Amino acid sequence: MSGLVYLNGEWLVPEQAKVSVFDRGFLFADGIYEVIPVYHGRPFLAQYHLDRLHRSLAAIAIPDQPDAFWQSLVVELIDRNEMQNGLIYFQVTRGAESKRSHLPQGPVTPTIFASISPLELHWDTPEPAKVVLCEDIRWLRCDIKSISLLGNIMLKQYAQQQAAIEPMLHRDGSVTEGASSNYFAVKDGVIFTAPRDNLILPGITRMWVLELAQQLKLPVREEAFHISELAQLDELFLTSSSREVQPIGQIDDIIIGNGRCGPLTQKLIEAFHESKRAHLA
Amino acid sequence: MSGLVYLNGEWLVPEQAKVSVFDRGFLFADGIYEVIPVYHGRPFLAQYHLDRLHRSLAAIAIPDQPDAFWQSLVVELIDRNEMQNGLIYFQVTRGAESKRSHLPQGPVTPTIFASISPLELHWDTPEPAKVVLCEDIRWLRCDIKSISLLGNIMLKQYAQQQAAIEPMLHRDGSVTEGASSNYFAVKDGVIFTAPRDNLILPGITRMWVLELAQQLKLPVREEAFHISELAQLDELFLTSSSREVQPIGQIDDIIIGNGRCGPLTQKLIEAFHESKRAHLA
Repeated sequence: MSGLVYLNGEWLVPEQAKVSVFDRGFLFADGIYEVIPVYHGRPFLAQYHLDRLHRSLAAIAIPDQPDAFWQSLVVELIDRNEMQNGLIYFQVTRGAESKRSHLPQGPVTPTIFASISPLELHWDTPEPAKVVLCEDIRWLRCDIKSISLLGNIMLKQYAQQQAAIEPMLHRDGSVTEGASSNYFAVKDGVIFTAPRDNLILPGITRMWVLELAQQLKLPVREEAFHISELAQLDELFLTSSSREVQPIGQIDDIIIGNGRCGPLTQKLIEAFHESKRAHLA
Repeated sequence: MSGLVYLNGEWLVPEQAKVSVFDRGFLFADGIYEVIPVYHGRPFLAQYHLDRLHRSLAAIAIPDQPDAFWQSLVVELIDRNEMQNGLIYFQVTRGAESKRSHLPQGPVTPTIFASISPLELHWDTPEPAKVVLCEDIRWLRCDIKSISLLGNIMLKQYAQQQAAIEPMLHRDGSVTEGASSNYFAVKDGVIFTAPRDNLILPGITRMWVLELAQQLKLPVREEAFHISELAQLDELFLTSSSREVQPIGQIDDIIIGNGRCGPLTQKLIEAFHESKRAHLA
């Protein structure tokens, strides 16, 4: 471990950053998180991430901080760690109480933890990857970016065992999202992705790709696609802050298109790189 | 805070019991827990609790310890805290890694935390309480006693706002359980409770009440009851290790029976007390 992390007002080496076992984050997963990419020392799409952080905290009634607090934390994380390209991690829990009780026993001071880890800035087209289909076993408030992530972890472990980078989750056959990504399918020139509701985490990269598709005048429908349609898809990709736009060439034994990165996916990857270039300029 | 808690081989005052912010329990709720009641210095139904602990750990592939380890931890918690009547709390997480990554980056040493808090031994018939009906928004592996509890916390907070002691959760109208309890309904002399599957946590008190009902030759069906039947129920109660058998007199605005503790509920409360007396003898 290296670098400095922020914990409740202090800057610490990671080995010293500890929370009480009575922190409600540790006991109950009573907290939320956010991840913000940093390119060339500047956060990318920062306001969208902060807005989602505010929404997550409001959804579970944990006291929030103003934008300025989070913005200066972003700057300080970058400066203190001299990080040019990285992923900022924010976590807020309801805080520590003197005893374990499902219901908070009174006003609690939230625990705020923040760190940054290195990220490689890439400009290539990633190799198409494999994903595996799984039933979505998670809760019905996936729109909250909560640390209650055991379901996601189990699904990711299952995918790893199948030599896949992500699970493709579905509820009753309708594809929702990945364990830490959103899916986009292309069929007959139209791009499909699950609608923004309580069943998916509204990914910032998902939102940004929808924006880019609109700029490129590519037809998009925010409609879930069905697992019975997978074999007929022309293209498939997933999005996340760390993977950006990742082509998918295979779902279980189903090869998508010819297994290579499709033309619309390629266009969006280039548009994404272009928006990073504009950010760096 | 008072007393001593156990954390990874050390006995600490609670203020000193801290875990790394990189503990996977804190970051991902990647862990499980167990609660064991202690009456007169001896754990009640301990083996059932330990068996469930083993099942929870196995379900998420966290390395376990033999029964003897947990049994001596039970004894030491009681002795060091001179606790006659209490609730033992065990929590095991996958442990701390040097950086945050959904997938474990290699073999990790699990974090083991244990504490005991006082519990009043009671011999009365509790006053009938109120519960509120809620959609069960939790994940589909409620059979694992995981610390991924944010959904349970949110549902409990909703119940508290309605001056109720627990939510009554249902999926598509079928009652599953509470946020930390199991429900039993009585209709025409037959006791109904949701079957043991992935939608409920198999409560040890639930199991024990089923056992007592059998001894009393009371007819029981492990079948979920439907919310459309609530107004016609004769009796209703919930069970948990801390509440034991708790009569329910009201669901939202629906009064159950005459709002008082029903005769079968009363029989089971007395049988439960009797089994505690036998344990103490």
